[in-house]
Amino acid sequence: MNRRAVWWIAVLATACSTAPPPTPVESAPDPALVARAKQLCERALTDDHAIEILRSLLQAAPKRLSGSPGAAAAVQWGLDTMRQIGLQNVRAEPCMVPHWVRGDETAEVTSPSPVSLHVTALGGSIATPPEGITAELLEVRSFEQLAALGEQARGKIVFFNRPMPRILERTGQAYGAAVPQRTNGAVEAAKVGAVAALVRSVTTAIDEYPHTGMMQYEVGVPEVPAAAIATADAERLASLLHQGPVSVHLQLGCKTLPDVESANVVGELVGSAHPERIVVIGGHLDAWDLGDGAHDDGAGIAHVLEAARLLQACGVQPKCTIRVVLFMNEENGLAGGKAYAAAHGRDQHIAALETDAGGFAPQGFTCSLRDPEAAALRQRFLPLGEHQMGAFLTGGGGGADIAPLAREGLPMFGLVVVGHRYFDYHHSARDVIDNVNERELALGAAAVAYAASVLAE
Amino acid sequence: MNRRAVWWIAVLATACSTAPPPTPVESAPDPALVARAKQLCERALTDDHAIEILRSLLQAAPKRLSGSPGAAAAVQWGLDTMRQIGLQNVRAEPCMVPHWVRGDETAEVTSPSPVSLHVTALGGSIATPPEGITAELLEVRSFEQLAALGEQARGKIVFFNRPMPRILERTGQAYGAAVPQRTNGAVEAAKVGAVAALVRSVTTAIDEYPHTGMMQYEVGVPEVPAAAIATADAERLASLLHQGPVSVHLQLGCKTLPDVESANVVGELVGSAHPERIVVIGGHLDAWDLGDGAHDDGAGIAHVLEAARLLQACGVQPKCTIRVVLFMNEENGLAGGKAYAAAHGRDQHIAALETDAGGFAPQGFTCSLRDPEAAALRQRFLPLGEHQMGAFLTGGGGGADIAPLAREGLPMFGLVVVGHRYFDYHHSARDVIDNVNERELALGAAAVAYAASVLAE
Repeated sequence: MNRRAVWWIAVLATACSTAPPPTPVESAPDPALVARAKQLCERALTDDHAIEILRSLLQAAPKRLSGSPGAAAAVQWGLDTMRQIGLQNVRAEPCMVPHWVRGDETAEVTSPSPVSLHVTALGGSIATPPEGITAELLEVRSFEQLAALGEQARGKIVFFNRPMPRILERTGQAYGAAVPQRTNGAVEAAKVGAVAALVRSVTTAIDEYPHTGMMQYEVGVPEVPAAAIATADAERLASLLHQGPVSVHLQLGCKTLPDVESANVVGELVGSAHPERIVVIGGHLDAWDLGDGAHDDGAGIAHVLEAARLLQACGVQPKCTIRVVLFMNEENGLAGGKAYAAAHGRDQHIAALETDAGGFAPQGFTCSLRDPEAAALRQRFLPLGEHQMGAFLTGGGGGADIAPLAREGLPMFGLVVVGHRYFDYHHSARDVIDNVNERELALGAAAVAYAASVLAE
Repeated sequence: MNRRAVWWIAVLATACSTAPPPTPVESAPDPALVARAKQLCERALTDDHAIEILRSLLQAAPKRLSGSPGAAAAVQWGLDTMRQIGLQNVRAEPCMVPHWVRGDETAEVTSPSPVSLHVTALGGSIATPPEGITAELLEVRSFEQLAALGEQARGKIVFFNRPMPRILERTGQAYGAAVPQRTNGAVEAAKVGAVAALVRSVTTAIDEYPHTGMMQYEVGVPEVPAAAIATADAERLASLLHQGPVSVHLQLGCKTLPDVESANVVGELVGSAHPERIVVIGGHLDAWDLGDGAHDDGAGIAHVLEAARLLQACGVQPKCTIRVVLFMNEENGLAGGKAYAAAHGRDQHIAALETDAGGFAPQGFTCSLRDPEAAALRQRFLPLGEHQMGAFLTGGGGGADIAPLAREGLPMFGLVVVGHRYFDYHHSARDVIDNVNERELALGAAAVAYAASVLAE
């Protein structure tokens, strides 16, 4: 794009202020809401503060997996930051969380010839024996295929190599299609007598970064170690297996320690007219430990805290209370979400909104409501679209942390962002602040601020 | 996002397939168009070929500024690639282009104390004397301020330090607000007797990468050298200037050689019913030399070539001809755009579409038409929105390369993408393939393919 393009840009910039097409609507948006959306958006971009919140979190607690000293530091950071922002009723609400710790971890092909693999233990996995496990690989692409192979798996390491399907337009959907081999691979492998599960990382990128994430065991099924390898390694293994048998040595030093006390961090913008009515906006404070959890879910934490700051900075006074919740332990237990629901299930919640899809350009919100309730709200969300903050999307729900709150009629919202790059970083060493764009993060915060203000009216 | 989020993702993925809200429209989209959009999108994601085209271009001609050996290699690559894709009437259409070459370039603060600066000559600049220029800096934020300072600028280096305004929602608009100091800074500096222009790089990022780009001289005004410095350096200089006078030594070895012959590369999908009616889709083949021009405009080249491949792969046979044009010399002269218009101004063009905004997630198309013509087309573009390929956007035009074709009533289109990160990379060493996401690039190509197919009916 050159200097002559400037004229075109100016024309374009004036003309195309939004993603949603200017299809006819029932009536023009409320001018006060249009002005509010513009003010929040411009303030978010100008102050550029969301990225500072994220930077501050990642400096205070770059590693903050539940139960770790970093998670405790993150809780303290959350309390301090909420107070700095000027929230009221700031407190830590205790919950007991799992405490799984990573140890040394290595994997290498031992036969036909040595190849080092990029490996990471899956969260919750048991360790291998100290000397490791060496066994032949058995590659499968589905649980059905594994079950059909039956006895052939005995004594082997099952290599789950189903890629995220490229064809799906939403990466979240593609993730859903591939992730069961990570969550349940160890159980399915153990059922047929295998000694470990080695899983292709759940990402569309082909690279050298292993991606961790939660796995689980099942009562009555032997526990075997489970680890993920980088997608480039998975491709290499598949190619080797095409030529003949492949053996791998796997060594994992991870372990689960006793549960420890941690906390959700809660603060409020108290409503002016109906303080007892509550709109929850939240993200999760814990993060996987390979990267810094910049997108997952440092971005969500920055979104909700910056949203609260923006509303105050712009003089938007909600009639109902906006309660900001930094949930603990979303990644491996959901203890925070459950504890919040247990403690506050009888509060007068009028809506709950979660942001846990990364700090990318906002596309809008899913909402659990159906028409005609959804139609009325959609009208009030239209100004978002005019300021690059996305649009109102029907259908869908909120997110994992607010799911325990769900009840008939409670509107649940989830921030949707451009998700093509999310799984390139997700749960890996690449989830760092250099991969977050300050403007996209700021607009997400503005979108959350706008949505919260509308819901709290 | 954890394993429990999978259920939510599945719900969400099913529900929110699109950015534009499902506001009521005149009538349901044509089912054949809906099917075509889906097919193109899925094929683009599955084949994942757009990124291969881009990778191939950047391997064949990583540096391809007009007049360079790389530009000649890019022309040959374009011819070869079009033939591989199966386009018809593939040819190079000659044009004469400027040949500016970069030399050694350095800049450093000499007083109050030595500080090295990240500098790059602006395209078209003359060299400094071999020993360089050392002079005191005069910081300004506007041409008006410079004119008001008048004689104070004599003998100095004018430091143009106006940032891109953060407040603007579209980065293209913010670019338009800041870029005149790059294009015209040398002229304005020379008018008041200054000896050189040093310009803050035109990007919202604060980092150590200088961004080049075109500048111009004016007949009758002395020519002085012009260079850009990194934004982080600009902030440092501003801070130093706050404390007292600052002198800088600038040395540039660039020069302009005689014009050389180059070419646009042209190929066609010949229309089945009206081969003489032509829809042009194009991007530009040349690129600034600091990075590899991956986004600017390697992405546009990948978009239009992959669009042509996709249409054939999906069996979409246009009634009118789709002419793919890889324009030469968009960055510093627009010789290709002008040559194309001169050679083909009398062809029966029915639409022209340009992609030159980077390989990010598509948001839709600007269109020069106004209602009621625009309204009819908008209806036919609706299926784009259902497949994450953006939406139809009224207003705006096409781009610099197709601008010379503009005439009353000829619809001009420009691909719009999520632009928040574009200027982080634009014209700098960061414009490399690692900063392009394969899925976002593929969807842009699918959007171009869809648009071209609709326009060619």
